[in-house]
Amino acid sequence: MAVRAVVLLSGGLDSATTLAWARREGFECYALSVDYGQRHGVELAAARRLAAALGARDHKIFKLDLTLFGGSALTDDAIDVPTAGVKTGIPVTYVPARNTILLALALGWAEVLGARHVFIGANAIDFSGYPDCRPEYLRAFEAMANLATRAAVEGRGIGIRAPLIDLAKARIVQLALELGVDVAGTVSCYQPDEMGRACGVCDACRIRRDGFEKSGIPDVTRYRAQ
Amino acid sequence: MAVRAVVLLSGGLDSATTLAWARREGFECYALSVDYGQRHGVELAAARRLAAALGARDHKIFKLDLTLFGGSALTDDAIDVPTAGVKTGIPVTYVPARNTILLALALGWAEVLGARHVFIGANAIDFSGYPDCRPEYLRAFEAMANLATRAAVEGRGIGIRAPLIDLAKARIVQLALELGVDVAGTVSCYQPDEMGRACGVCDACRIRRDGFEKSGIPDVTRYRAQ
Repeated sequence: MAVRAVVLLSGGLDSATTLAWARREGFECYALSVDYGQRHGVELAAARRLAAALGARDHKIFKLDLTLFGGSALTDDAIDVPTAGVKTGIPVTYVPARNTILLALALGWAEVLGARHVFIGANAIDFSGYPDCRPEYLRAFEAMANLATRAAVEGRGIGIRAPLIDLAKARIVQLALELGVDVAGTVSCYQPDEMGRACGVCDACRIRRDGFEKSGIPDVTRYRAQ
Repeated sequence: MAVRAVVLLSGGLDSATTLAWARREGFECYALSVDYGQRHGVELAAARRLAAALGARDHKIFKLDLTLFGGSALTDDAIDVPTAGVKTGIPVTYVPARNTILLALALGWAEVLGARHVFIGANAIDFSGYPDCRPEYLRAFEAMANLATRAAVEGRGIGIRAPLIDLAKARIVQLALELGVDVAGTVSCYQPDEMGRACGVCDACRIRRDGFEKSGIPDVTRYRAQ
C-alpha cells in the first residue's frame, strides 16, 4: 500500500512543486487548500487544476474566514500589498499564524487518513521573511504535533516535510520543470486579476521573476498590462 | 491599559470557568469559538451568552467545517457518541488535532490584538483522555508559537495558559460558582437536544455529574427525559 501524505497546496509555484516532489517520492498525496479570504481567489482555482494534473488522490478546500481578525495585506482590504520592491524584515503580507493554522488542519486530516507525512512548500532562502517559514519553526511544529494526536500517542508519529526549505528560487523553477509542473498555471502573485494574471511588482512576483532570471529559463508567468 | 488575552470558549463548563478566571486576573478578554460542525450547536449559543455575561470585550465565532475529514463522533454522524460509561484510553469523541487548530486560530488573533496570553480550559485530571489536553502538549504548542509569529520574532512572546489543568472536576464546579459563572447555562454534553438539555450518559455528562457529586453542590445541569 502506498504511503499517504497530506500536501498543503496554495496554487503557487512552491506548493505545486512540493506536491510534484512528494508524488515523485511515491507518496499517495492528499492536497489541502484553505480559502481564508485571501485576495487572490484565482489561486484556489489553480490549486484545483494542479491537484488533478499532479495526481493528488483527493483535494479538499477548507473555508476559514481569516478576515475576521485581519492583520495582513492579504486578509484586510485596508492594508495595501507593497509593490515598491522587496524589503528586509517581515512584510505586511505576513498573515498572522497562517502556517500554524494550515499545518494544524493538515495534521488533523493526516491523522484521519493514517498519513505519516505532511508536506509544506516553505522556503527559507528566497522568501518574504515570514517567521513561519523557518526551519526552527517547522521543527517546533513537528515536536508539538508528535504530542498532539491519538496517532502520536499510539506510536504513529508525523513528519513535517519541507523539501524546498534550502533551495534558491532559481532552483525551484528548474525543479518544477523537471517534475512536470505546469509552471504557467501556478499563481504566486499576491494580487492577480480575475484571469490569474500577475501584477509583476509585488514581492511574490519579484522573487519569482528573479528566480526565472537566475535560472536562465524564460519566464512563462502571465503578466497583466501595467 | 489592560493586558489583553484571547480565551477559547466552547460554551462548556471548563472554558466558561477559564474565561471567568482570566477576567478575575484582570485581563481584557477576547473570546474565540469555532463552529466546526460539532453536533452540539447549542454550545455556541451558550458561548455567546457566557461571553457577554462574563464581560468578554469581543467574541468571534469562526466557521470551519471539520466534518470535511471527520474522524470523530463529534464530526461524523456515522460514529455514535458512547454512552455506556467512561473508558480508559482515547475515546471516539476525540477530534483529530482539534486543540491544535483552536490554539492556532487563537494565536493568530492574539497576534493581531497584541495579546500576550491565550487561555484554554484544558484539564488533565477528570478528563476524557485527549492527548491535546496534556501539559506536555501545551508546553510544546507554546514553544512552537514562540517561533511562529512576527510578534515572537520581535520579542513579544505568547503564553499558553491552562489554569484548570491540574484541577479535579469537583474543584472546577466550586471555582465556577465562586467566579460567578452561570453554571446552568453551560453546555458540556456531547449530544444535547436543541434546548441545550444534556443527555446525562455521555462521557462529558458523566464526568460533569461526578464533579457535582464530589463537590457537594447540587447539580444544576438541565437534563432531558431519558
